[in-house]
Amino acid sequence: MIRRLIGVGVGPGDPDLMTLKSLSVLRSSDLILAPTTDLAEAGRAETIILSVCPDLSVTRILFEMTPGGAGIQGRRAAAERAAQSILSTGQSWQSAAFVTIGDPNVFSTFSLLAESVGGMDPEIEIESVPGIMAFQDVVAKAGIKLLDEEESFRLLTGLNVGNDLEMALSDPSSAVVIYKGGANLGRIKETAAITGRLESGWIGIKVGMSDSEVKTLADTDEDTVGYLSTLVFPPVAR
Amino acid sequence: MIRRLIGVGVGPGDPDLMTLKSLSVLRSSDLILAPTTDLAEAGRAETIILSVCPDLSVTRILFEMTPGGAGIQGRRAAAERAAQSILSTGQSWQSAAFVTIGDPNVFSTFSLLAESVGGMDPEIEIESVPGIMAFQDVVAKAGIKLLDEEESFRLLTGLNVGNDLEMALSDPSSAVVIYKGGANLGRIKETAAITGRLESGWIGIKVGMSDSEVKTLADTDEDTVGYLSTLVFPPVAR
Repeated sequence: MIRRLIGVGVGPGDPDLMTLKSLSVLRSSDLILAPTTDLAEAGRAETIILSVCPDLSVTRILFEMTPGGAGIQGRRAAAERAAQSILSTGQSWQSAAFVTIGDPNVFSTFSLLAESVGGMDPEIEIESVPGIMAFQDVVAKAGIKLLDEEESFRLLTGLNVGNDLEMALSDPSSAVVIYKGGANLGRIKETAAITGRLESGWIGIKVGMSDSEVKTLADTDEDTVGYLSTLVFPPVAR
Repeated sequence: MIRRLIGVGVGPGDPDLMTLKSLSVLRSSDLILAPTTDLAEAGRAETIILSVCPDLSVTRILFEMTPGGAGIQGRRAAAERAAQSILSTGQSWQSAAFVTIGDPNVFSTFSLLAESVGGMDPEIEIESVPGIMAFQDVVAKAGIKLLDEEESFRLLTGLNVGNDLEMALSDPSSAVVIYKGGANLGRIKETAAITGRLESGWIGIKVGMSDSEVKTLADTDEDTVGYLSTLVFPPVAR
């Protein structure tokens, strides 16, 4: 019988932003896997699903989440170990759900895991269930219209701030979202000021956490935000 | 007492892709509004919510959906009429939910309506609940990883195909999504071929309808797809 590994997006943090499908997949799976950076503590996706379904039995999977090029070797090795432990688990399973915040196909720990599992056992079917992404939550809370008519949209990471960001912000009909913008906030704000986008920018700090905030970018200090901040610039040519 | 108008994203079509929050907002609203282009027929968002909650009482709102610059006057006038009818309805309400496919802040009929309502009665609070977008559904069904590491993402409409599309596809580390790509599919495929992206492209046809399909772009004929097709090109530099 065919076994399936399903990446399940559980949204940005508010358990209410889980989809009906994510819930039904969790309830019908015989193995539920959740990434964590410390096996003694629940990761964010586990916390989200347990607040909706406290009776789920969750198996924690140790993941390495050091970002960027410096972390990729560690993340790949962790994904290989995780794939091995899933495939060699004593528990028999037909359908394993791996939960992940946001969407499982967008900057997600699920991608590396799926590649590792697929490499070890090509017979396992890989599927995914979309989830609401952090920037959608920030846009809704800021009360802004992200896109309309023939406007376009760019999503970048803030790990490297350079020409790409300046080019993106220089197009007044393009909405721009920056993930992981916290570390370079000072330089991002400078670029936004040069391109006339600072005053209309928003920032989501600790998106999905209980102490999350959505604020205007111009009023936000570099020192007060974490690495995982989400920046949103709506189009200015309207 | 403050009245609220809430744009509720109900996802791309599969009722299971509605969020828990969209359902709870619908259940707690005393007026549920759904756009349609023909008052005698249910629009897509109405069909989605009734398949999950058949007991909801829905008020249809006539909308004009002719796309592009040619349609904007008609769409604005329809939004003004809709806002007027909502504000002058005989039914008293505190919380009105306007349902929309996808996300209410991304290419949605909700934006124009919210602007019209806000212009007529600034006291009404405007809120929104995010929804899964069509491209996320196409990506999940195609089984592709959209973004990882420091890759970026661009979303364009296919209403005008020109330099912007060629520039977007020329960046091999950028995922590119094209909404409303059906009408110009021939020219989009040519541009994808020139930039080396044709073979890795996917297309979602009639996304969210019962006869929807997700296929590889290279095998798809211009004549067989509708205006509302969603094209997805994952990054090629991996």
